[in-house]
Amino acid sequence: MEANNVHRRFNPLTRSWVLCSPHRAMRPWLGQKEEAAPEGPTYDPKCYLCPGNTRASNPPTANPSYESTFVFDNDFPALTAPGAAAESSTTSAENNDIESLLFQSNKAAGLCRVVCFSPTHNLTIPEMSHAQVVSVVQEWMRIQKDLRSNHPAIQYAQIFENKGAVMGCSNPHPHGQVWATDYVPQEPLDELNSLAAFSKEHGGKCMLCLYAEIEEKRADRVVYSNNDFVVVVPYWAVWPFETMILSKAHVSSIEDLSDAQQSSLADALLALTIRYDNLFETSFPYSMGIHGAPILTASPEHAHAAHLHLHFYPPLLRSASVKKFLVGFEMLGESQRDLTAEMAASRLKALSPVHYKKR
Amino acid sequence: MEANNVHRRFNPLTRSWVLCSPHRAMRPWLGQKEEAAPEGPTYDPKCYLCPGNTRASNPPTANPSYESTFVFDNDFPALTAPGAAAESSTTSAENNDIESLLFQSNKAAGLCRVVCFSPTHNLTIPEMSHAQVVSVVQEWMRIQKDLRSNHPAIQYAQIFENKGAVMGCSNPHPHGQVWATDYVPQEPLDELNSLAAFSKEHGGKCMLCLYAEIEEKRADRVVYSNNDFVVVVPYWAVWPFETMILSKAHVSSIEDLSDAQQSSLADALLALTIRYDNLFETSFPYSMGIHGAPILTASPEHAHAAHLHLHFYPPLLRSASVKKFLVGFEMLGESQRDLTAEMAASRLKALSPVHYKKR
Ligand SMILES: O=P(O)(O)O[C@H]1O[C@H](CO)[C@@H](O)[C@H](O)[C@H]1O
Ligand SMILES: O=P(O)(O)O[C@H]1O[C@H](CO)[C@@H](O)[C@H](O)[C@H]1O
Repeated sequence: MEANNVHRRFNPLTRSWVLCSPHRAMRPWLGQKEEAAPEGPTYDPKCYLCPGNTRASNPPTANPSYESTFVFDNDFPALTAPGAAAESSTTSAENNDIESLLFQSNKAAGLCRVVCFSPTHNLTIPEMSHAQVVSVVQEWMRIQKDLRSNHPAIQYAQIFENKGAVMGCSNPHPHGQVWATDYVPQEPLDELNSLAAFSKEHGGKCMLCLYAEIEEKRADRVVYSNNDFVVVVPYWAVWPFETMILSKAHVSSIEDLSDAQQSSLADALLALTIRYDNLFETSFPYSMGIHGAPILTASPEHAHAAHLHLHFYPPLLRSASVKKFLVGFEMLGESQRDLTAEMAASRLKALSPVHYKKR
Repeated sequence: MEANNVHRRFNPLTRSWVLCSPHRAMRPWLGQKEEAAPEGPTYDPKCYLCPGNTRASNPPTANPSYESTFVFDNDFPALTAPGAAAESSTTSAENNDIESLLFQSNKAAGLCRVVCFSPTHNLTIPEMSHAQVVSVVQEWMRIQKDLRSNHPAIQYAQIFENKGAVMGCSNPHPHGQVWATDYVPQEPLDELNSLAAFSKEHGGKCMLCLYAEIEEKRADRVVYSNNDFVVVVPYWAVWPFETMILSKAHVSSIEDLSDAQQSSLADALLALTIRYDNLFETSFPYSMGIHGAPILTASPEHAHAAHLHLHFYPPLLRSASVKKFLVGFEMLGESQRDLTAEMAASRLKALSPVHYKKR
């Protein structure tokens, strides 16, 4: 790897640059190492997500003996339900113009749900069957449809998964979350603005439709592809093994997936997460999130420009125990990575499609 | 703490929102805990930063027997020196318009320096004397002046410190870094754009001059203040105990500090970091960085709008071992915090100005 190939790449979704220093993965590492989590049992009597167990909610509630997925309202939600909130005691509404610019606040409300992916305590997505992953996809669709139908204040549903203790996940039982808000959060809003601007400047074309098509043709960042989805290490990836799952057709929301597309998405999720686990032969940590159209928006441009995709942000860099720290320069200067997107993609692509525990 | 006080606040420097869920710090925490680093010796024969020791550079070099600060070029730099780089093999210059929009890259070059703050292996800033901290400030000034005078390609010097293993710091010996680039990195560029826009819209007024003045008057987010600097938990803080050190006068760069201001900055650095250490009676980890004017810029608006300030991003939330994870929702949705800026400021302000080890 040549040290003189340092360069920056531009992310057209967030409109920001990332510094790429391909030679840097070779420096010695003397810093913090993560501990590998021991393999858990299939049922843990102390787990508040396992079937039949009691949660520390108020009043304490027993989980049903669920057999597939299971959804409940987070017992410690970051948001309070729309309508239930008292008049907000915001510190906004300042006495002069400049103060009101410097001290802006807004009320926020929403719903926080937990989505158990499986009754089995130690079964993460890469070890599930195809049918089980399809059930997860269908649960995400159901939640979003329920929010649309029964919670008229909700504008956006951020579906995500924190996997692994290093990603702040406090329970290894396979689960994700949905934080649904009465506004469109900053990150999807930035993306929707970029997509809408691109569409406007290019006669209604969709940036991510074109991007998926070009990446498929170029092939050097593609990890996996099927009829309906392509998995790439994006050209502008920040995390060492960051990926995107992109719908090939212009599907704007997970709610709109056909049966065939649901099945294809499950295939793509399996293909990607199995390779992730195989990379360092460990349960590979990440934060994952789904981006698509708002549930409710005053902007027809946003509704039209939205293109379903999933982001995976995994922290590991060199091994099961050494992660990439996005700290000093990355927080204060700009994002920086230690290998190219193409290097990461070719390593992921070369891995076996069979999970290492099943070989 | 009332659960119905959930709200969002706006950061006028980065022009983005943060979700504030003040009741959320009360949820139980079963997740990952950090290990406290044991207190090290004053000299470590294996440390590559201690005076007289040999570094694994090529060829191996011995550090001088330095007595105050010591600066050297990083042996594993993320950037290669301007001019030394071969013609860049970027994948930019595409064959059509859309591809050139989606796959944008740029050459990047720069210099990476390591700044040892003290010859004493276990002496971090909060335990230094005032004179020792002044020496660090003067070293930062010297480095920036040297870059300006002797490296004409350099546009920006990002001075930063990663403190603590949890912040990716691989050596406890007190040190920071300077990554100097032949462009202005994304984060300071975004801030400079915001400051310049504010100045344009408000008859040349400086946003951060006004902000420092108003915060001082309001007092509820002020942790410490002296003649020249004020330390606040910014209204829009993301990290639980995030702070900013703001120059009160419109100083645009650390290079421009008078003797009195250098002394005041050292006082502010001590006042803040001692309280940080006292908060959980631990060596408090953080990433810190200095933002100011570019060394070289084609934009007179940026040069004029820049206002010297320091950001501190500390990860701890509840104790010496429990940090805040900015993961799933924060990465995919928007930044989220579990206590208000005012709560954080009043806790920091109430702490003793004497370091807990010296009491
Ligand atoms: O240069 P260091 O201290 O070895 O490395 C640390 O700081 C750098 C600059 O913020 C980061 O890129 C690295 O990920 C981090 O581990
Ligand atoms: O809700 P959990 O899983 O307890 O908490 C985790 O995910 C949340 C959403 O990304 C974060 O705000 C928390 O910091 C993290 O620990």
